[in-house]
Amino acid sequence: MRHWRPGIVQDVPPPGLIDLGPGYPGPDLLPVGLLGDAYHRALEEYGPAALAYGHNTGAMPLREALAERAAATDRYPCGPDHVLLTAGTSQALHLISCLLGRPGDVVITDQYSYDLGRRIFTDCGLRVHAVAMDDLGMDPVALREALRDEHAAGRRVAFAYVNPTFHNPTGIVVPLARRTELLEVTREYDLMVIEDDAYAELALEGGGPVIPSMAALADYRGVLRLGTFAKTLAPGLRLGWLLGAPALVASLGEHGMLVSGGSLNHTTSLAVATVLRGGEYDRHLVWLRAELRKRRDALAGPLRAFSGERIGCRVPGGGFFLWLEPCGATEVREEAHAAAAEAAGVRLAHGARFGTGDRPRLRLAYSFNPPAVLTEAAHRLVEAWTV
Amino acid sequence: MRHWRPGIVQDVPPPGLIDLGPGYPGPDLLPVGLLGDAYHRALEEYGPAALAYGHNTGAMPLREALAERAAATDRYPCGPDHVLLTAGTSQALHLISCLLGRPGDVVITDQYSYDLGRRIFTDCGLRVHAVAMDDLGMDPVALREALRDEHAAGRRVAFAYVNPTFHNPTGIVVPLARRTELLEVTREYDLMVIEDDAYAELALEGGGPVIPSMAALADYRGVLRLGTFAKTLAPGLRLGWLLGAPALVASLGEHGMLVSGGSLNHTTSLAVATVLRGGEYDRHLVWLRAELRKRRDALAGPLRAFSGERIGCRVPGGGFFLWLEPCGATEVREEAHAAAAEAAGVRLAHGARFGTGDRPRLRLAYSFNPPAVLTEAAHRLVEAWTV
Repeated sequence: MRHWRPGIVQDVPPPGLIDLGPGYPGPDLLPVGLLGDAYHRALEEYGPAALAYGHNTGAMPLREALAERAAATDRYPCGPDHVLLTAGTSQALHLISCLLGRPGDVVITDQYSYDLGRRIFTDCGLRVHAVAMDDLGMDPVALREALRDEHAAGRRVAFAYVNPTFHNPTGIVVPLARRTELLEVTREYDLMVIEDDAYAELALEGGGPVIPSMAALADYRGVLRLGTFAKTLAPGLRLGWLLGAPALVASLGEHGMLVSGGSLNHTTSLAVATVLRGGEYDRHLVWLRAELRKRRDALAGPLRAFSGERIGCRVPGGGFFLWLEPCGATEVREEAHAAAAEAAGVRLAHGARFGTGDRPRLRLAYSFNPPAVLTEAAHRLVEAWTV
Repeated sequence: MRHWRPGIVQDVPPPGLIDLGPGYPGPDLLPVGLLGDAYHRALEEYGPAALAYGHNTGAMPLREALAERAAATDRYPCGPDHVLLTAGTSQALHLISCLLGRPGDVVITDQYSYDLGRRIFTDCGLRVHAVAMDDLGMDPVALREALRDEHAAGRRVAFAYVNPTFHNPTGIVVPLARRTELLEVTREYDLMVIEDDAYAELALEGGGPVIPSMAALADYRGVLRLGTFAKTLAPGLRLGWLLGAPALVASLGEHGMLVSGGSLNHTTSLAVATVLRGGEYDRHLVWLRAELRKRRDALAGPLRAFSGERIGCRVPGGGFFLWLEPCGATEVREEAHAAAAEAAGVRLAHGARFGTGDRPRLRLAYSFNPPAVLTEAAHRLVEAWTV
């Protein structure tokens, strides 16, 4: 952990503090050996072709492998022409915001949504309109009202940003019927949907959700689906992908940035392609899901035993986060809970970072710390919140 | 060369055709072994820290190494706070266009300038205003007129894009006095200058240009200087950097895209940092310059023997390109020259791709093909153009 310090990697918390704030994979979850072998193999196998500019939409071996995976999980005939490689979800959101949005345009998001995604939108001059959600995800009636209001006000809506599978921060999986209802509304308003599926491969129970992606449900018409290796392999690779209708993907690939420089992250794309092709990625995912399940349970166990009294705790079926709802004394604000937690040596994320709700909320990431540390964090929280 | 085909790498020309069009480094110039070792070393040395999100402005070891190089060549006290890592020049130009420009704004460029850079600007909704140049670079009088005209027309000028060292496509190195004159004008109009220095480390004669960068001449006030490893190591890495005033660099690092995902290309940054630190980069550059010199001379030799008759041929002191001026019969258009070349089995780039001049121009890249092939291309051209 010698190099695990600011300037080389992300910021680290002060000693003694357990940080459940950011949604980082823990250092012990990052497959150093696997990826070292992958770079070695890609350079050996492809030689200088692994170091050249690369095709605008990305290296074919990885696009083929990703299309096959999407086709298998969605039972939808995806091909490599549906795939554009990206430098991860953040870069994809930036490119989409610049291409689909003009300063002053509106982006529709869930009531609670990925805070730094919102920051990318606003940094591109877009205005966020958060739409009410219930336990099944975004409310279609509220979505229709929002679109009607924005149109009535003469504002252009650039796209809707959703995260229907293991939603950050709530952990919700939007069920099939709700996905269909939402797509009916977006089709009615001819609204592009950006489906962030960063956590889709991180189901922690059974076979995971068998619900098709919104992209597949829409026949890829009017939906762009984003994937990333940041949560499943390693964020530092800065590698992700975008699935969309072939004509749209081809036109994105004609952007000057990609025509000039070639696909973002060509060398790394070929390295990761060897990991997918060899079956190592699937084996790694099986291991990673088991590790994340242990972490989730280590944190959620003590909190659930405590819940019912003062904290509502939803245990998610996948992803990186617990979403807590302090209940009972509604006058107790999330700032007070977070401050009590911090005083007891646990840092967590205020709900307000992700949106505004009727009640206080807290997000706890179980992805970074090992199980024993998470159990210790849970005990500290129970003690801090038992007044 | 098994994988050197469309879909995996850039497009390849039909068999028999020698392609002098794109500014690609040749496959035999790409250091496969060196970079394989670099990834291995970075993962061994930094472990999981090489796979984490990374600092917003980029991994400290590479920022330190790049600041040291800039400080040494410019004799200017650069530190790591002057450096933001990028995914290469194209990505940097895209980010800058989105941040500094608004659709409808104007970008000032040289009369001839990097065609795909221009495409990035126009794909971001910016309008290109090309300013006349002479043998010393952009004409300061014409620049002042252009800025006066744009302001008079009520248009906002987002920035000026220049490429003063081994200019693409002309090969010009803008001399010190001209750099100073241009900076006087941009300062007068409070205009940001984007200095593309992609070829700055590829001087092919002696110690190369000892002229300071425009950024250093301006004390980094109002100038952002772009560097890339695409021409000196490998384009597929998609790794570059930006040098600017620390306050501006810090504010760029606060963009949602970088706060969310961390620096673009963290893992690759640490791999390349080991190459710089170990001295391998400098040794590679010495070798690369010698190889490029052989290529330049192999192409330029036969053309210069032929020149004076129908073709003016300027032999550049560095970079990737020969810039030819068909002379004599001015009614002969560059299309006719290019068509005759293509019929003789040589593809080259029309001057019109890079801008509009008073006379026909042609750009020939000597970077991709080995010397014997370039000599063959030159002979074909001489024959094709000797009517």
